[in-house]
Amino acid sequence: MKNLLCPICGRTYPADVRSLFCPVCGDPLVSAFIPKSPKIRRREPMGISRYLDFIPLAEFDRNLSLGEGGAPLQALTRLQSAFHFPPVFAKNEAMNPTGSFKDRGSVVAIHVARALGFETVGTISTGNMAGSTAAYAARAGLRSVIFVKDDTPREKILAAGIHGANVIKVRGDYALLFVKSFEIGRLLSFYFINSVDPYRIEGYKVTSYEIFEQLGGRAPEILFVPVSSGGHLIGLIRGFVDLKRAGFIRRLPRFIGVQARGCAPITRAFERKQTAIKPVRSPRTIAHAIANPYPPGGKALIKMLAANGGEMAAVGEGEILKAQRTLAEYEGIFCDPASATVLAAFAKRTKQGRISPRSRTVLVITGSGLKTIGDVDESKLRIAGADLSDLPQLMAAWK
Amino acid sequence: MKNLLCPICGRTYPADVRSLFCPVCGDPLVSAFIPKSPKIRRREPMGISRYLDFIPLAEFDRNLSLGEGGAPLQALTRLQSAFHFPPVFAKNEAMNPTGSFKDRGSVVAIHVARALGFETVGTISTGNMAGSTAAYAARAGLRSVIFVKDDTPREKILAAGIHGANVIKVRGDYALLFVKSFEIGRLLSFYFINSVDPYRIEGYKVTSYEIFEQLGGRAPEILFVPVSSGGHLIGLIRGFVDLKRAGFIRRLPRFIGVQARGCAPITRAFERKQTAIKPVRSPRTIAHAIANPYPPGGKALIKMLAANGGEMAAVGEGEILKAQRTLAEYEGIFCDPASATVLAAFAKRTKQGRISPRSRTVLVITGSGLKTIGDVDESKLRIAGADLSDLPQLMAAWK
Repeated sequence: MKNLLCPICGRTYPADVRSLFCPVCGDPLVSAFIPKSPKIRRREPMGISRYLDFIPLAEFDRNLSLGEGGAPLQALTRLQSAFHFPPVFAKNEAMNPTGSFKDRGSVVAIHVARALGFETVGTISTGNMAGSTAAYAARAGLRSVIFVKDDTPREKILAAGIHGANVIKVRGDYALLFVKSFEIGRLLSFYFINSVDPYRIEGYKVTSYEIFEQLGGRAPEILFVPVSSGGHLIGLIRGFVDLKRAGFIRRLPRFIGVQARGCAPITRAFERKQTAIKPVRSPRTIAHAIANPYPPGGKALIKMLAANGGEMAAVGEGEILKAQRTLAEYEGIFCDPASATVLAAFAKRTKQGRISPRSRTVLVITGSGLKTIGDVDESKLRIAGADLSDLPQLMAAWK
Repeated sequence: MKNLLCPICGRTYPADVRSLFCPVCGDPLVSAFIPKSPKIRRREPMGISRYLDFIPLAEFDRNLSLGEGGAPLQALTRLQSAFHFPPVFAKNEAMNPTGSFKDRGSVVAIHVARALGFETVGTISTGNMAGSTAAYAARAGLRSVIFVKDDTPREKILAAGIHGANVIKVRGDYALLFVKSFEIGRLLSFYFINSVDPYRIEGYKVTSYEIFEQLGGRAPEILFVPVSSGGHLIGLIRGFVDLKRAGFIRRLPRFIGVQARGCAPITRAFERKQTAIKPVRSPRTIAHAIANPYPPGGKALIKMLAANGGEMAAVGEGEILKAQRTLAEYEGIFCDPASATVLAAFAKRTKQGRISPRSRTVLVITGSGLKTIGDVDESKLRIAGADLSDLPQLMAAWK
């Protein structure tokens, strides 16, 4: 059975996790699965079990789950009234078990790894994916190997290492490491679940189904998503396309992928109407989780945005940090800088009059601010020192 | 109406958040609310809205919520078979919006703050409560003031400060600060939502109701909970007592509160059959979130454990760190050291033959390991470095 599909040339291939790229185009394959009259299992909680018909898994094994999914869709009512925004919601994927959206993909890929009898899984990551893959491998009783860049911060290494993962800090070219990992995988029968893995992407579709239900059975008019490798937004688009094909919705949302101006290879290609992605020589952004200089899913994403109605945007460093603080101060959501890009892009477009006042927008928040706490700009916060005896006077002064 | 109750002497008092301690005993008051024929609203998702009949709130305002509640109850199947444990589950409260169980209490107290017209709320905290209170205050549009100890780690200060809170690092005696905060609150009409606030405690009851439903409509035989001020376990006991009183369950679980041996004032009093708590002079434990040298709810907790069937335990530093790693390696849950105490205590009692093989145990995990990542013992993890070119040989060696 030809279960994998090249989103560029349309050729199909047999499912084989050792060969996940189109031999003709070189682009990552996606699942060829199309749900047949899928039903939402309304007695199941949100997460995969509720949308099992939409996902190429025979069953959902609770023993492989950490309780991912069902992240809240929060109406950003205070932001809306303070900034005169059109209706806007945050889908807070930072509330997944390891603090990022990656868990949605990890749980599906780990199901596949178990079904195919792999004993070892791996990934390449600079952060969120390392912790997520290691945690789900641990839960499944699989060995894991995580390749990280030599200069990866200690916190991110520990968040994977704590799960018993073999973490290897690799000196050398990161893009080459991506290719090398698949070679090693083929050689040793390790399943490398990297950013654009087709089963990982199938897991991201679930977020779209949940947004549809959380909005009361409709798609938002606009969806903003931070973009790194491209895999997450590809999954979200596929999810809404599934809903349209199955008759749940009549129109797709307008998809807006957001990158940081300091590393925006997909946005740049989109703006110049190019189909190929030119690597960024030196990424410079605080939004590390999306600082991907040569995103493997970029070409496919641009094609999907053109086919389904969508675009790419980019925002600057000042806008990102301001948006991170604004979301925390007005709505109580502490996200990482990568996630803050979507609020920055939405705010800018609203100001430019490019968002209809009647449209409903969903911002996808992808990761927790707790994981990047060192990047918070302390100078903007209200932090002071005082002696206990001085407190009453100090407090009285700002009554 | 006399809505508050002293759990020591049984006197009742009018609800007044400026006076939350019994003037006779000096102990913190709890809510006198007893649910009348409460019903579970099975169409609502888990969290307060589903159990509104059980909580002294007239309504649940979604605009004050960050999506707290509904934390997964994970069957620890791999741990069970590897260590020959009796059936055991983790209620993973670290999956709440700000990464700890505190959010359950903050959302209820913030409802009360809004209903009473307060413009400023505050708290005293060394960590989890600071971020939680600041986040919920931000969501509600209230000003917040957070008193922290002078030596509180920068990360914890930032996690509160990012929400626009006024964070004040206070030099001086911490126990005195607790008293002082209420004085300041009375003077300036600030509502200090501290650890044993009666409304905060009402929020913790919801966790008990969820565990009951997640176990298929029954209570566990045993419940292990990390204990700091005592407020959390008091809330969990109250929750199960509600269920018993309303006829949902026939027997309460056996409650086991756990402290770190290096700061175990309640356990020490329990073991010596004392009713009063003697302050710990110099707390020494890595479980910072429960290193409370003079827990204000200690006396009430000991009384409630005696009345409802329960006990206190303590575990050592080595056991704590080992349990933290074990939970992460076998089950994919990365908790903080304070949470790991419950697995350590459960493992020890199982080994001693004190846990019946037919009993079902729930371990309450209270906080995320991401918030205490600096405390991970790196020397026990598998972290290595390699050149890209050496990877294939390196990998082949551990095939």
